[in-house]
Amino acid sequence: MVPRYSRPDMTALWEPEEKYRIWFEIEAHATEKLGQLGVVPRSAAKALWDWWATDPKIDVEAIDAIEAVTKHDVIAFLTWVAENVGDEARFMHQGMTSSDVLDTTLAVQLARSADILLADLDALLAAIQRRAEEHKYTPTIGRSHGIHAEPVTFGLKLAQAYAEFDRCRRRLLAAREEIATCAISGAVGTFANIDPQVEEHVAEKLGLSVEPVSTQVIPRDRHAMFFSTLAVIAGSIERLAVEIRHLQRTEVLEAEEYFSPGQKGSSAMPHKRNPILTENLTGQARMIRAYALPALENVALWHERDISHSSVERFIGPDACITLDFALARLTGVIDKLLVYPKRMQANMDRMGGLIHSQRVLLALTQNGVSREDAYRLVQRNAMKVWESDGQLTLLDLLKQDEEVTAALGAEQLKEKFDLEYHFKHVDTIFERVFG
Amino acid sequence: MVPRYSRPDMTALWEPEEKYRIWFEIEAHATEKLGQLGVVPRSAAKALWDWWATDPKIDVEAIDAIEAVTKHDVIAFLTWVAENVGDEARFMHQGMTSSDVLDTTLAVQLARSADILLADLDALLAAIQRRAEEHKYTPTIGRSHGIHAEPVTFGLKLAQAYAEFDRCRRRLLAAREEIATCAISGAVGTFANIDPQVEEHVAEKLGLSVEPVSTQVIPRDRHAMFFSTLAVIAGSIERLAVEIRHLQRTEVLEAEEYFSPGQKGSSAMPHKRNPILTENLTGQARMIRAYALPALENVALWHERDISHSSVERFIGPDACITLDFALARLTGVIDKLLVYPKRMQANMDRMGGLIHSQRVLLALTQNGVSREDAYRLVQRNAMKVWESDGQLTLLDLLKQDEEVTAALGAEQLKEKFDLEYHFKHVDTIFERVFG
Amino acid sequence: MVPRYSRPDMTALWEPEEKYRIWFEIEAHATEKLGQLGVVPRSAAKALWDWWATDPKIDVEAIDAIEAVTKHDVIAFLTWVAENVGDEARFMHQGMTSSDVLDTTLAVQLARSADILLADLDALLAAIQRRAEEHKYTPTIGRSHGIHAEPVTFGLKLAQAYAEFDRCRRRLLAAREEIATCAISGAVGTFANIDPQVEEHVAEKLGLSVEPVSTQVIPRDRHAMFFSTLAVIAGSIERLAVEIRHLQRTEVLEAEEYFSPGQKGSSAMPHKRNPILTENLTGQARMIRAYALPALENVALWHERDISHSSVERFIGPDACITLDFALARLTGVIDKLLVYPKRMQANMDRMGGLIHSQRVLLALTQNGVSREDAYRLVQRNAMKVWESDGQLTLLDLLKQDEEVTAALGAEQLKEKFDLEYHFKHVDTIFERVFG
Amino acid sequence: MVPRYSRPDMTALWEPEEKYRIWFEIEAHATEKLGQLGVVPRSAAKALWDWWATDPKIDVEAIDAIEAVTKHDVIAFLTWVAENVGDEARFMHQGMTSSDVLDTTLAVQLARSADILLADLDALLAAIQRRAEEHKYTPTIGRSHGIHAEPVTFGLKLAQAYAEFDRCRRRLLAAREEIATCAISGAVGTFANIDPQVEEHVAEKLGLSVEPVSTQVIPRDRHAMFFSTLAVIAGSIERLAVEIRHLQRTEVLEAEEYFSPGQKGSSAMPHKRNPILTENLTGQARMIRAYALPALENVALWHERDISHSSVERFIGPDACITLDFALARLTGVIDKLLVYPKRMQANMDRMGGLIHSQRVLLALTQNGVSREDAYRLVQRNAMKVWESDGQLTLLDLLKQDEEVTAALGAEQLKEKFDLEYHFKHVDTIFERVFG
Repeated sequence: MVPRYSRPDMTALWEPEEKYRIWFEIEAHATEKLGQLGVVPRSAAKALWDWWATDPKIDVEAIDAIEAVTKHDVIAFLTWVAENVGDEARFMHQGMTSSDVLDTTLAVQLARSADILLADLDALLAAIQRRAEEHKYTPTIGRSHGIHAEPVTFGLKLAQAYAEFDRCRRRLLAAREEIATCAISGAVGTFANIDPQVEEHVAEKLGLSVEPVSTQVIPRDRHAMFFSTLAVIAGSIERLAVEIRHLQRTEVLEAEEYFSPGQKGSSAMPHKRNPILTENLTGQARMIRAYALPALENVALWHERDISHSSVERFIGPDACITLDFALARLTGVIDKLLVYPKRMQANMDRMGGLIHSQRVLLALTQNGVSREDAYRLVQRNAMKVWESDGQLTLLDLLKQDEEVTAALGAEQLKEKFDLEYHFKHVDTIFERVFG
Repeated sequence: MVPRYSRPDMTALWEPEEKYRIWFEIEAHATEKLGQLGVVPRSAAKALWDWWATDPKIDVEAIDAIEAVTKHDVIAFLTWVAENVGDEARFMHQGMTSSDVLDTTLAVQLARSADILLADLDALLAAIQRRAEEHKYTPTIGRSHGIHAEPVTFGLKLAQAYAEFDRCRRRLLAAREEIATCAISGAVGTFANIDPQVEEHVAEKLGLSVEPVSTQVIPRDRHAMFFSTLAVIAGSIERLAVEIRHLQRTEVLEAEEYFSPGQKGSSAMPHKRNPILTENLTGQARMIRAYALPALENVALWHERDISHSSVERFIGPDACITLDFALARLTGVIDKLLVYPKRMQANMDRMGGLIHSQRVLLALTQNGVSREDAYRLVQRNAMKVWESDGQLTLLDLLKQDEEVTAALGAEQLKEKFDLEYHFKHVDTIFERVFG
Repeated sequence: MVPRYSRPDMTALWEPEEKYRIWFEIEAHATEKLGQLGVVPRSAAKALWDWWATDPKIDVEAIDAIEAVTKHDVIAFLTWVAENVGDEARFMHQGMTSSDVLDTTLAVQLARSADILLADLDALLAAIQRRAEEHKYTPTIGRSHGIHAEPVTFGLKLAQAYAEFDRCRRRLLAAREEIATCAISGAVGTFANIDPQVEEHVAEKLGLSVEPVSTQVIPRDRHAMFFSTLAVIAGSIERLAVEIRHLQRTEVLEAEEYFSPGQKGSSAMPHKRNPILTENLTGQARMIRAYALPALENVALWHERDISHSSVERFIGPDACITLDFALARLTGVIDKLLVYPKRMQANMDRMGGLIHSQRVLLALTQNGVSREDAYRLVQRNAMKVWESDGQLTLLDLLKQDEEVTAALGAEQLKEKFDLEYHFKHVDTIFERVFG
Repeated sequence: MVPRYSRPDMTALWEPEEKYRIWFEIEAHATEKLGQLGVVPRSAAKALWDWWATDPKIDVEAIDAIEAVTKHDVIAFLTWVAENVGDEARFMHQGMTSSDVLDTTLAVQLARSADILLADLDALLAAIQRRAEEHKYTPTIGRSHGIHAEPVTFGLKLAQAYAEFDRCRRRLLAAREEIATCAISGAVGTFANIDPQVEEHVAEKLGLSVEPVSTQVIPRDRHAMFFSTLAVIAGSIERLAVEIRHLQRTEVLEAEEYFSPGQKGSSAMPHKRNPILTENLTGQARMIRAYALPALENVALWHERDISHSSVERFIGPDACITLDFALARLTGVIDKLLVYPKRMQANMDRMGGLIHSQRVLLALTQNGVSREDAYRLVQRNAMKVWESDGQLTLLDLLKQDEEVTAALGAEQLKEKFDLEYHFKHVDTIFERVFG
């Protein structure tokens, strides 16, 4: 976790205090059910919840100090709770293993992280939609291979991004559902010393589903799927970030990250305004993608479990969630305040002297009876002149002067082929599909 | 693609013939709709389908020869079709771009690959379930960290695998749904020269959904999700493969890959029977995981599209699908014919002189009023003797001779704590959860 | 391996015929030494080499047919050789294991692949150097963050690429040295049934060094290092490919992949010339990087060896080497024939009205006694006007009219700050460092 | 960075204080040379070094407070230095860019990290060597595929590990040399405003070499190589960790991580002693491998530089170095105190009734004139009985009773084939090769 790439809510979720809070909830809910089942006194859960109702401070240092002696984190925590709650606390954890607490806690943390990320995605989608509507009909050149192809609108670019992040949202919802399971099944997962009803009770209270079969641990294919889903989202972040970096290039400059009036882009070069936010996002995307790999390697634990996944998750649990939360929020800010330059879009589109309409002329000639080969030759010979003039000549002018062309296609018809609006007749259809 | 790790049906799907067959279907369906819309003569589609009904041989070499001249694969194919169908064929491809054909074809190939993989998973699940039922109550030791923990059944191990691959099945279904989209939207995806109804028609005919917004290409986050899902499945394959490799170790030998009567394990060492199939699967899993990475990097194409994804997909499209198909089938065979040795399982479980029941004695002493500290000390001092005897002494015998122990726990009570069945009382619950 | 991304020499190295040829050499050299040691008759090696001298055709199908019966590739090969050579062949392979042959063969294949790749790098370096010298003083704008910064030369860009690929060359040499080891040490590597002198002899004959300690297999950290090195080279290929893709963008167009006179960039849009070769290289780089991962996972084989590495290497051995060979050759072609447009470079540099010289004016004002704050303000207020004029105004003109500026800096001095040559005074130093 | 997986020296190297200390050194050395070149007063460097000689506290909070205003980290630092040093400090940083400082600092940090890691490797190598000498002739079974093969010694296992980490050491030395370069070349790397002699001076003072051609940044192929090298080392750590995890399995138990007398393996199960340190190392290895990926993606920066590498390096710089340092130290501790059980090794080797000697009998029969087919049949029919007896019968006994066998091989000769020492005659050769 890099502090400058983190936000408080998500970070708090991965702090020791929060972890211990979830531990307590799991233990208290379990004790409650054990009481109902007659395994422990009903008074035990009451004592725990009464203390909890006082909103006690989680004393991480005290727990650490106990752990330094017991060498066992869960026992240290239980000891600290017992010191605070008193004798009734000894009924906690009956028939459970540490993994029951640790794995269910990780499930809660990842599910809650997913909730934050879903809210991040909602905010991002809202920002993209707002700017898409704003620029629904702002003409700009569509580029394939980085080369001018045919016109699109800036709104269409954003509609694509919307549809992509909407898919990311659905994927994350599915990943959240997968990861949000509860395992309280005892050593090697047989429920030998704990009734499955305890698991069901805790699951219900924490909003989790029951892990159908655990083997002391919740199976790690769930986590692999979760972190792989974050990796896919990171890919989509990179795509939009790279788009903006391209648009801000000096020669293109069709859009820019927001730059406040008094801001300095460079201490040495007053002319510089760099797309540093989206460059930053590009790097963060690389990290989030990388975190999926060890999660995939974690799946093949030995037999009922080994603990090799644990060190991995101490890194990627917080690092992937915190970084993705930050990245989504940053991207939302970038989109929200993005400076868009329609005039420059138009100017860029015009710089090739209308070459971008060559396909329509070609088709029209063909439809008017010129063979495809001839049509291609006619358009190309004029197009090449425009190309060589570096945009000083225009294709329409040259075509109008080419008698072979005008024999097949009148001036009015020719001109109509250079109509920008022609390309936008289905923008509404696409917006309808995307935004409903 | 490595021939020895491939099966014919999946491989055929990625052969040029099949690709061209899908190309034809897309073009013919599109022409059909263009005819209905009055853009081209209705006779065009009829001519195409009439020819297709003759089940013509796809002449890959002839198409290649044309491509050598035109330097364009789609044009080469259209030319070849025109040579066969005649003049009506010139109406094909009206208003479309090559990407419309290529990307929709890839969608069809991946969707059909997913169908094969889903069938593979069904077969695997059936094999696992059969063996799980067979060994529902076959006792075996549960191991955490590779160390004996407490008893489970071999059926439970397989129930875990079943639940895991069942999740994989659901993930693959979702990935299939995501990838199965159709884009026929023309250059830069604006439908400028082709009606969106054509796309809808082709999509319906091919069993695809409509890509809401394409930008000449189908967005690559879909493919990233697809290949990431295959990677997760590979992780689960590795887990089960590693389990079997462990079980076949000389010292463990609780199960073995099938070994036919006359087979030689090693030309030099007649005693060898190696788990080579599952070792092989382990390596294949590594490959399938690796293929997800470039798919993730493919997401961030430049602007409306660049073609950097294309070379990647020429590798990972066939390689990931073919290898996973092979791996699932091989794993199914391994499970189906797995040699299981219940006696050895029992022998291994017994080798520690009953130490695996130490927890229950500890709990019973506590419940009978011995303090936890004392109980631990009592059990441990006997357990250590058993440990040091390397299984020659048994814990039950020693405990019966320990007066401090027997003061709290009678012989009958003690014996009951060593009951294996105690651990299996919820096997049925778990099976019910997993197999329904 | 994708046929269209492969070249014949490298591909041949990974064909079965070549593999069998190397197998034979290893076996024959070993038999030779065994003869000298008196373990087998000296006549055995002679018989083998005599047959080999007839340049016999390697009959892959015949060997495959035998393998179908024996289920063992090395035994099948030995049987086929025996069928051809006769009785003396039975002395081959004495005291060896299959891995001795397989692993040493892989070492030979990788070492020879490295030789081809080193030659590829030499060709690439030569092409880069030639173009660097050609454009040593061709001015072009240096860009940070995609934004104009200060002037460089196109030769400097290429000098950087040269230095980078020269480092790649040295890394590959080191990786080649690491991988080129010979292991002939028998089952589990103890030399129990074969004298270490055999290993030394075979190593010397094949130009390999001796593996100091093998455990039936050559340790896979060597291979991990080899494929990681290829991955780093792929990164450098991507860097140069991306540079060219940027330079060919419509708005930049400072360089282009070669485009032959009659070539069509797009069947529909006559104006298109796409950087498809470098886009292709970008995708290939992603694949080559991905292949390093399973090689890294292969390191941790179980005990003396498991065979999980084998299926991985059947993929990545040929795929990584063949693809990298192709990519290096393609990049060489791109560089060799790259169309470079110095005029456009100059035009792009000029489009910001001299803003790129703002730093020098700032420094000069400071040196002439203006406070840094005032200097920044003076330059910025003029720079902003230039910026807003979109290059219609020039910074030099405005500064000359700004009395506060001219009070500190005379017209002549001002003009001198806009001198392009100033930036190139150390080009020679850098070239000296890079090209020696 | 996860605190529990970090050690103080390495961590300190990545703290802000240390970073600022290196910044100061670079700036002061540069100022010194600028003074010698007459660009700034010689008194400037003196003032800086005089202040530095007072060992001033680096006030990170004060610098942060300035950065909150200036929004520029290097300017904030320079301002803070100026506040402390006084007027002379204004000559610092003349003609330099921030990247000159940042990239050279990263080079220093990585080089110093490499020094720590090299020392770690030395300690690890020493521990391995000590244990290897100790167990040079401790017999243990060699296992391929997890199955007993033929005898080795425990010392040989460790000799392999030694050779592997010795290669890692050499790789790290090479990576260190690559990464230890200094770039002080100004904006876009042309030395336009700073003399190359400054770079040479700073490089020499900091023990770095000169970056031949930088483009504002040090090229990232160097960093890719560095982190890839760490990834390979991680693979070797995993290999040795997995070996120990295997050896500690209940059924194998030939070695164990150190377990102190009073220690509790599990609060619930007194019999448990888990290989948690090496499981932990396995997970850490996965992380260190993962960090190589974004480093590889960082290579292809846009044009002279973009800043996408920066966020990546804020993660992987500290995380990869700190985690690897911790892992190497932990592995050293594990090896140093590893509990080794030669008796159990012997017992495991004996459990198959001498089957592991089957190859030698086979060879001896062949050498005495029995055909290979007959010899195989004779050995196999006895071996199978031993196999089925689960080690109750021994191969030697059975062979002695088989008349067909004894007709070819006398009792004495037979017995000799079961000699363990036979396998160890070249242990010395191998040790000589490895330890010199």
